[in-house]
Amino acid sequence: MGVNQVSYRDFCEQPKNSNIRLSFPAVCFVWQIAMIILFGVFVRYNPESDAHWPEYRRMKNFTDLENDFYFRYPSFQDVHVMIFVGFGFLMTFLKRYSFGAVGFNFLIAAFGIQWALLMQGWFHSLDYNDGKIKIGVENLINADFCVAGCLIAYGAVLGKVSPVQLLVLTLFGVTLFAVEEFIIISVLHAKDAGGSMVIHAFGGYYGLSISWVLYRPNLGKSKHMNGSVYHSDVFAMIGTLFLWMFWPSFNSAICNHGDGQHRAAINTYLSLASTVLTTYAISSLWEKTGKLDMVHIQNSTLAGGVAVGTAAEFMLMPYGSLIVGFFCGLISTLGYIYFTPFLEKHLKIQDTCGIHNLHALPGALGGVVGAITAAAASTTVYGEEGFRGIFDFNRVAPVQGGYQAAALCVAIVFGIGGGIFVGCILKLPIWGDVADENCFDDEFYWEVRTCQISKYNCNLSN
Amino acid sequence: MGVNQVSYRDFCEQPKNSNIRLSFPAVCFVWQIAMIILFGVFVRYNPESDAHWPEYRRMKNFTDLENDFYFRYPSFQDVHVMIFVGFGFLMTFLKRYSFGAVGFNFLIAAFGIQWALLMQGWFHSLDYNDGKIKIGVENLINADFCVAGCLIAYGAVLGKVSPVQLLVLTLFGVTLFAVEEFIIISVLHAKDAGGSMVIHAFGGYYGLSISWVLYRPNLGKSKHMNGSVYHSDVFAMIGTLFLWMFWPSFNSAICNHGDGQHRAAINTYLSLASTVLTTYAISSLWEKTGKLDMVHIQNSTLAGGVAVGTAAEFMLMPYGSLIVGFFCGLISTLGYIYFTPFLEKHLKIQDTCGIHNLHALPGALGGVVGAITAAAASTTVYGEEGFRGIFDFNRVAPVQGGYQAAALCVAIVFGIGGGIFVGCILKLPIWGDVADENCFDDEFYWEVRTCQISKYNCNLSN
Amino acid sequence: MGVNQVSYRDFCEQPKNSNIRLSFPAVCFVWQIAMIILFGVFVRYNPESDAHWPEYRRMKNFTDLENDFYFRYPSFQDVHVMIFVGFGFLMTFLKRYSFGAVGFNFLIAAFGIQWALLMQGWFHSLDYNDGKIKIGVENLINADFCVAGCLIAYGAVLGKVSPVQLLVLTLFGVTLFAVEEFIIISVLHAKDAGGSMVIHAFGGYYGLSISWVLYRPNLGKSKHMNGSVYHSDVFAMIGTLFLWMFWPSFNSAICNHGDGQHRAAINTYLSLASTVLTTYAISSLWEKTGKLDMVHIQNSTLAGGVAVGTAAEFMLMPYGSLIVGFFCGLISTLGYIYFTPFLEKHLKIQDTCGIHNLHALPGALGGVVGAITAAAASTTVYGEEGFRGIFDFNRVAPVQGGYQAAALCVAIVFGIGGGIFVGCILKLPIWGDVADENCFDDEFYWEVRTCQISKYNCNLSN
Repeated sequence: MGVNQVSYRDFCEQPKNSNIRLSFPAVCFVWQIAMIILFGVFVRYNPESDAHWPEYRRMKNFTDLENDFYFRYPSFQDVHVMIFVGFGFLMTFLKRYSFGAVGFNFLIAAFGIQWALLMQGWFHSLDYNDGKIKIGVENLINADFCVAGCLIAYGAVLGKVSPVQLLVLTLFGVTLFAVEEFIIISVLHAKDAGGSMVIHAFGGYYGLSISWVLYRPNLGKSKHMNGSVYHSDVFAMIGTLFLWMFWPSFNSAICNHGDGQHRAAINTYLSLASTVLTTYAISSLWEKTGKLDMVHIQNSTLAGGVAVGTAAEFMLMPYGSLIVGFFCGLISTLGYIYFTPFLEKHLKIQDTCGIHNLHALPGALGGVVGAITAAAASTTVYGEEGFRGIFDFNRVAPVQGGYQAAALCVAIVFGIGGGIFVGCILKLPIWGDVADENCFDDEFYWEVRTCQISKYNCNLSN
Repeated sequence: MGVNQVSYRDFCEQPKNSNIRLSFPAVCFVWQIAMIILFGVFVRYNPESDAHWPEYRRMKNFTDLENDFYFRYPSFQDVHVMIFVGFGFLMTFLKRYSFGAVGFNFLIAAFGIQWALLMQGWFHSLDYNDGKIKIGVENLINADFCVAGCLIAYGAVLGKVSPVQLLVLTLFGVTLFAVEEFIIISVLHAKDAGGSMVIHAFGGYYGLSISWVLYRPNLGKSKHMNGSVYHSDVFAMIGTLFLWMFWPSFNSAICNHGDGQHRAAINTYLSLASTVLTTYAISSLWEKTGKLDMVHIQNSTLAGGVAVGTAAEFMLMPYGSLIVGFFCGLISTLGYIYFTPFLEKHLKIQDTCGIHNLHALPGALGGVVGAITAAAASTTVYGEEGFRGIFDFNRVAPVQGGYQAAALCVAIVFGIGGGIFVGCILKLPIWGDVADENCFDDEFYWEVRTCQISKYNCNLSN
Repeated sequence: MGVNQVSYRDFCEQPKNSNIRLSFPAVCFVWQIAMIILFGVFVRYNPESDAHWPEYRRMKNFTDLENDFYFRYPSFQDVHVMIFVGFGFLMTFLKRYSFGAVGFNFLIAAFGIQWALLMQGWFHSLDYNDGKIKIGVENLINADFCVAGCLIAYGAVLGKVSPVQLLVLTLFGVTLFAVEEFIIISVLHAKDAGGSMVIHAFGGYYGLSISWVLYRPNLGKSKHMNGSVYHSDVFAMIGTLFLWMFWPSFNSAICNHGDGQHRAAINTYLSLASTVLTTYAISSLWEKTGKLDMVHIQNSTLAGGVAVGTAAEFMLMPYGSLIVGFFCGLISTLGYIYFTPFLEKHLKIQDTCGIHNLHALPGALGGVVGAITAAAASTTVYGEEGFRGIFDFNRVAPVQGGYQAAALCVAIVFGIGGGIFVGCILKLPIWGDVADENCFDDEFYWEVRTCQISKYNCNLSN
């Protein structure tokens, strides 16, 4: 076995070749054709999106408005913007990797949502009468949530992997996510409306573990490319703001109709507002002349949204949300200052976007907040019916709190275990990733037009 | 007549003068004042936006929520974003025509929606009791749809025409659109929820025909400006993504309440996801080292949304949507690689944004998909009531399919015929367009500030 | 007193020190902790966001859909985008102050909404049974509205003040706003759905007065930084467009359910479309060769949305909205051409973003339009019930018109008076603002990475 390990390592250390002309299209085509076949066999419309709706709604005595579409579609669109513009633009901060950031984010998400509809469908939307998955708007939201986990993981390896590796990362990531989600939601009956545990803790540790396995000792050779320029930081703010603004929709999208969605949006709004203040404060305090650092502003301001996810639907109370946001902004910003360098130096984890501080840690904190809030829940605060509506399982509050904590462990174990496993696969030298000195550079996977202008000099971009 | 033709051509070949100081404001003012007068004579609120609503709704036994506003306003806002940010930013990819892209897009759209409200109002929302057009949120959506046709056409002539020409293009474009739409929807009783035929095929062929008439043999003199720079490609991705994300709202915005809107959103979501995969695959496959080309990613990823438009409300089935998207991504990307150069070289059609591959062809394909799906429709799949609800006319399915195909022909004929007619008008040398060597350059219609900074050098934009 | 005045002035003219390392974090922390305590004491969920909703709705015989969340959440999200992306990116036009524009806008808004929830809550949402403020989605919208006033004021002092000053400006601004709003809405019973008076006239004059007190005679030293570059103008168009597109949601967000929201959206849509045409016309007409100026396009196109705010819910009629937009585009653009230089030269008011032309004046015009429309209201046009529903106070129309005019005066007086007061506080040399020669430069409050790239030259941002 020692011999095997050595040869695996040797095998992995062959010179890099970033030509993906055959492997990449092949994976895309095979995958997409597989999706068409599987959708053909398994996926149908649910009663609310099927043309038999008029009969169905008369039978159920519904009006058209009670179609779930009208409860959830605006939230779905906000989540959709977060996935494609939010995550995509947040990662454009690198001076010369904006195409890769926004373009591969686009690819991963479009690829992942299809597989997510199937995986989550088998677990949650299977109609046992005919063996078909019946989909509606809530499935679309959940598919978007599912790829969010993979996009978070992408943040850790941004600029260091090939698009083929990203597709593999997503394929396994979505699969692991669906199993982990099933265990947390359907086996443990834990609640996680905004996915602090299911999405953020899982996605964060998944990405960090992959990055740990794919450690590049000579990444310093690309150091000159691993940073921002002025305009790329402004582009990244587009991502930050769309994530920040729509996070209330993210955390409330699949909550209970009525007060559930309403309260989750309020809690998230407040937590995020509070996070902004502490992020700015810490960023300024730790700098010699009190200057602010764009890295913190772009990322840590979002930590409050992550951390309030699990408890968003609970009676966290407005001040409770502010408190969660307060500490998360603080911890996340300090994480960027102290912990990211520590991770790289001592744990050999190179985390391009600092997802540890934005997703992994706040996600874990969110799980803890959720466990505490659940354990403290009472019918006095929630009302009999409200209590039953939110914790839809017959448990006393402290037991529910325990199950919430167990759920967090499941998420982290799946993230770390899955990440190591997938990392080992991605380490094989067959995926077309670039050499250490070519990281963070769009040139290797994108046609980048150089500046050939006679009339103006190249400064015309000013 | 031969003599006339010669002198028309001679007349058209006078030297260009891009000064629009009188003509442009004159057209704007005259037009806007005409709009005010016509709106004063013709346009009023409909019962759902009029202050008499409380009486009306009691009479109809409605609740406030059944006001169409709550069914359609979120979709309207998504469509609105597509028109102004989506189309606008998609065209910012040129290195030095971003002002023109986003600014003239803004102008055309704001100008066109007013005329569209009138034209479409006369055809569809006229109250025969008092001769007034009664408007509500659905009219706003339709007006946005209508200008989309003109914005598509703008893509073909981007960088080569003056703002006055664009206003003329829009004035005629909206008029033609309203007539064509009336024939397709109200005479032929064809269905076209997402406007594959009515909007995209029409708009695409309209723009291509105009571009054919306005052919500039010496456009090569502006070749150095006809391309992107790094940041302009990132800006264009903003447009791409907002179009991509909100396309489900576009295709579902005016569908039937309930399952119609719900199903259209799902079909579009799936088709678009599938398109992304094939676009990336083909883009990589056709490049020597497998690199991706931003032109394809920005445009062809959207073709699936176009092509699923007509059939979006139909029982296309999830796998059907994936198949449509699969082939559209493939065809559209190959179009950019092979057909755009062919169009320019052999057909003398200069298509700046490649609208043939993004709108015209996928739109026509969408019409065909719609015809086939309609012809195959059955009450088994739709249910009695669902069938009557969607195909609101008393026809058997194959006949409906035939009418769908006829509708596609109408759209294309209107596009090509209208485009040639309008092109001949725009060829007159009175509209202030620039000379061939000054195309794709904002400098001729915009104050462009040059870089005068002492402290930094001009690279500060980094 | 003369002596005091002199020494105040002397005290204020000490050399500037832009180090905010202690003051800024201190204010943030103290403030955020105060918020947590005050929210703990005062703020709770309202019946629609509380977990007792199932009991409450059964008591009231509501369905889940009648939770105000579903009436207002989509509008809320649009308003949220306007506040954070709209205002933020609109101000990124300066060549080297984009971080400050979007970053401080973010800070002010996140800081202000918390204080606004409390201040507005005490005035409007206090439950006298238990002394708690009960919040729901409408409070979130109102809090966003409230900070809009401060963000408008920021536009006048953009690039000239420190973040600490901005926090003070916001603290007082929100307080003044809440009092002014209470007088206008609850004492005078004036109507102001879109906040022409309450938000725009107040915010505009508040900012202009502050800028007048903080007059910098040697601002010319920063002249080379007070302008745009090509890409910064494109970024600013993101702000313009999101403001423009979502303004119908802004003006309709807190209108009456049903026809009120519906009509407000239509009126705003039309007014804005009309404004675009006159803005483009005037911009072109006043330039030697008819070129357009990005300053006008970015700002004056929005004036119609401001001016239609008060009357948005009224039966302004579609043509009435077009007329309002027509004149506002005209006046606002001429304001940029003639009045902004006049303000600076003769009134010593340096207005970086030209908020006088975009907010103050159109806001005042909107108040006048509202007064006239209210005075002309009749039960013939509105219907008995509609009239009572909109003007929820027992007055004849001309009296209501008078109160509307009085409300406008209140807004302006609060703006000017409050601005002078706050300006005097901000003039104290303790807030860390920069010297006259360092204005409009991000370098003093932000880590700005300089370009250190070996492989490419610094032009790579192209």
